[in-house]
Amino acid sequence: MKIAVLGTGGGARAHIAKLAALGHEVHVGTRDPQATLARTAPDMMGNAPFGQWLADHPGVALHPFGDAAARGELVINGIDGRNAVAALSAVADRLAGKTLIDYAVPYRYDPDLEHPWPTPWGVMPAMEPVDTDSLGEQIQRALPATAVVKSFVTQEQTTVVDPASVAGGDHTMFVAGDDADAKRQTTDLLTAYGWRDVLDLGPLVCARGMEMYAHLHSAIGFGLGQQFGGHFGIKVMR
Amino acid sequence: MKIAVLGTGGGARAHIAKLAALGHEVHVGTRDPQATLARTAPDMMGNAPFGQWLADHPGVALHPFGDAAARGELVINGIDGRNAVAALSAVADRLAGKTLIDYAVPYRYDPDLEHPWPTPWGVMPAMEPVDTDSLGEQIQRALPATAVVKSFVTQEQTTVVDPASVAGGDHTMFVAGDDADAKRQTTDLLTAYGWRDVLDLGPLVCARGMEMYAHLHSAIGFGLGQQFGGHFGIKVMR
Repeated sequence: MKIAVLGTGGGARAHIAKLAALGHEVHVGTRDPQATLARTAPDMMGNAPFGQWLADHPGVALHPFGDAAARGELVINGIDGRNAVAALSAVADRLAGKTLIDYAVPYRYDPDLEHPWPTPWGVMPAMEPVDTDSLGEQIQRALPATAVVKSFVTQEQTTVVDPASVAGGDHTMFVAGDDADAKRQTTDLLTAYGWRDVLDLGPLVCARGMEMYAHLHSAIGFGLGQQFGGHFGIKVMR
Repeated sequence: MKIAVLGTGGGARAHIAKLAALGHEVHVGTRDPQATLARTAPDMMGNAPFGQWLADHPGVALHPFGDAAARGELVINGIDGRNAVAALSAVADRLAGKTLIDYAVPYRYDPDLEHPWPTPWGVMPAMEPVDTDSLGEQIQRALPATAVVKSFVTQEQTTVVDPASVAGGDHTMFVAGDDADAKRQTTDLLTAYGWRDVLDLGPLVCARGMEMYAHLHSAIGFGLGQQFGGHFGIKVMR
């Protein structure tokens, strides 16, 4: 299947590598491919320059956002929460009629903080929107012809693409969205990733709870002594 | 042990009954005991009038908030999120030097909504504070001489006092607070309730994530078809 991944950060790379390993044709989108490939310094999360990473992943194509979106039959949004709505809106016509899976947390980036990103307690980034709206819903409103599904957001993407690496895969992944077919497509992808317990929370308004879980996720990671990410999952026991 | 439970709602009743069953001397606080006992209609959550409930729980004493707080060696806050800071501030001197366990979610009650409480998706109550502050931290600031611990808030209180009723007790409870002794006291109580996995998230700022989890908790309940509460827990798989 042709799958577009928009974004080149650590989370996006996890999906790109996994999708390629599963035999999919992966089209990666970035704002400016030449600029992305010209970078020689690690990104703000400490990831290696994308061009260097890409050299180890032959067969993965890099495009401007719009070209990648146009090529994907299914699209994964890996653009960070601050920039997602604007970047996706600019290529809305290329996303029409498709499923877009969004996993971004709408953190407000504050460059005045010493450690603005990710969440060290005490100087943690706030969210916007939060509580009465969600990034997932904002994206859906900006892309009315696209079926937006919120998923993946409750874990680190390295564990999303490799659920078996945590407790043998015995944990729970969530999906929410207003389109049943799009949620089925997302669940199929998760099943291919190795997920056995995918819980459909219902309509996209549930993205609020999924995004707002980010602070508890961070707290659990710190509580486990696993700073900056964490290698764990949560399982709904019923 | 003498334990005060402030509040007479469904959550408070779960703790009162459990603590009494465990052999503790339970002192219940309410704003106006005579008014509480005079009520003959169910409360807004559909709970039976408290006087009727109390008649089935001999040995449990009802007092004004301040008298109950004064009698408790350990205090549990079961006052709803809208009223907790004001009600607790009014009896701050009675809470000085003690541990106060808070499990309230700071929902904004909007009487104009058809179903203002609890959270039916689409007309869900928003939280205040949220994201950059928490009710737990507000209470701590209002009661600087009290050691506030946030706990219990990530589940229905009926399952908090009876963890074995969900998956044989195989799920996770969280504590957060700035005082190690107070968290130890809380964990001891949870152990007496039957909890085997109590995760210390760290300082009280983590109450933000615990309170904000309320929306995901509600969504999971709805996803499981368990409206208005839900009989499940989450387990941190690591």
